[in-house]
Amino acid sequence: MAVKLVTIKEDILKDNNEMSKMLREKFSKSKTLVMNLMSSPGAGKTSTILETIKRLGDDIKTAVIEGDITSTVDADKLDAVGVPTVQINTGGSCHIDSSMIEQAIEDFDTDPYDFIIVENVGNLVCPAEFEVGEDLRVMILSVPEGHDKPKKYPLMFTETEACILNKTDLLPYTDFDMKEFTDTVMGLNRKSKIFPVSMKTGEGVDEWVEWLRKRIVEKTGP
Amino acid sequence: MAVKLVTIKEDILKDNNEMSKMLREKFSKSKTLVMNLMSSPGAGKTSTILETIKRLGDDIKTAVIEGDITSTVDADKLDAVGVPTVQINTGGSCHIDSSMIEQAIEDFDTDPYDFIIVENVGNLVCPAEFEVGEDLRVMILSVPEGHDKPKKYPLMFTETEACILNKTDLLPYTDFDMKEFTDTVMGLNRKSKIFPVSMKTGEGVDEWVEWLRKRIVEKTGP
Repeated sequence: MAVKLVTIKEDILKDNNEMSKMLREKFSKSKTLVMNLMSSPGAGKTSTILETIKRLGDDIKTAVIEGDITSTVDADKLDAVGVPTVQINTGGSCHIDSSMIEQAIEDFDTDPYDFIIVENVGNLVCPAEFEVGEDLRVMILSVPEGHDKPKKYPLMFTETEACILNKTDLLPYTDFDMKEFTDTVMGLNRKSKIFPVSMKTGEGVDEWVEWLRKRIVEKTGP
Repeated sequence: MAVKLVTIKEDILKDNNEMSKMLREKFSKSKTLVMNLMSSPGAGKTSTILETIKRLGDDIKTAVIEGDITSTVDADKLDAVGVPTVQINTGGSCHIDSSMIEQAIEDFDTDPYDFIIVENVGNLVCPAEFEVGEDLRVMILSVPEGHDKPKKYPLMFTETEACILNKTDLLPYTDFDMKEFTDTVMGLNRKSKIFPVSMKTGEGVDEWVEWLRKRIVEKTGP
């Protein structure tokens, strides 16, 4: 059964990469930067999105494609503050793939947007394997999850350009070892940019947003 | 592509359920209670296992089947305190299935054990779909993940008998709404038993262990 599974997976990944390439060409024409944002459940994807959009300001037109197994809990939060949002319900699937993005944007014109955030399903494993037409892959780890997570879920750390370390306000109440965490991430992916932040207190968020702003402007042009 | 995926999944689940039934018959003969323990990454599965085994004491012979994508980080922690442990590396797969359990116990005689804990891969989605020959399914949610998780990942809450709410020591530093959490879990699965605990301070752990001890003794006999 293991072999059967692997074969199927290869086919799926190949189909997905082809569709991802088509999406990338579309977003390239419209000069839209697409970011695939991934993390475990509850690491703070939605609060990161809300705070990031607020700090990016009105100069950068942003929309969100929101992925969930079921429910519209997160999309409702974004909608409440006026962020243009498309909801994908994956119907049980533990990650978003390119065909879901294609369906999501069928009735949603993404061309006017400078920046699209794809909020992936909360999962530290599978989303890293599936491209969704993105330019930029970012992950969030939260302090209470522990400093050993890069060792246990290495693919997510090697396949992302930046790692937001959220909930630093909880550092005094946990045994999170910042040096061990940083060393492990750098060992896996020495180009990774680590941003320690607290979306609750705002600590470190400016550094993250200014790095991101540069990436968006590189794509959209001056 | 979506239809293709669904068909494959049905075949896999059917094969898995058949193998799970065979495992269940084996564990029934040896009067071994098997618990499938699931959670997001970093919710505290390994610390729960360590604390639970310590409190169950020597009367109940316990072993652990440890599932990880890669690495032996958790198995090493268990081994360090003398817990008999078998490591499964899933090689990328985001959950354990019954064929992995069958392979794991090929060279490990489980008959002498009263209680086997299967520590699943950290993932709040897929593990709930795959039986592993278990009698008892338990999940852990940790306070920092947030009270909205049952709404977003309902299958994990409906498919488990008990929900350990870990890291209650962090309640004062988060906006976790205990009433909303409990109401949502009860709405999904009114038979679910919720155990608020802190594996760090020990608060609430006795209630969980005594409930579990009863379940083990029901299976092993007096």
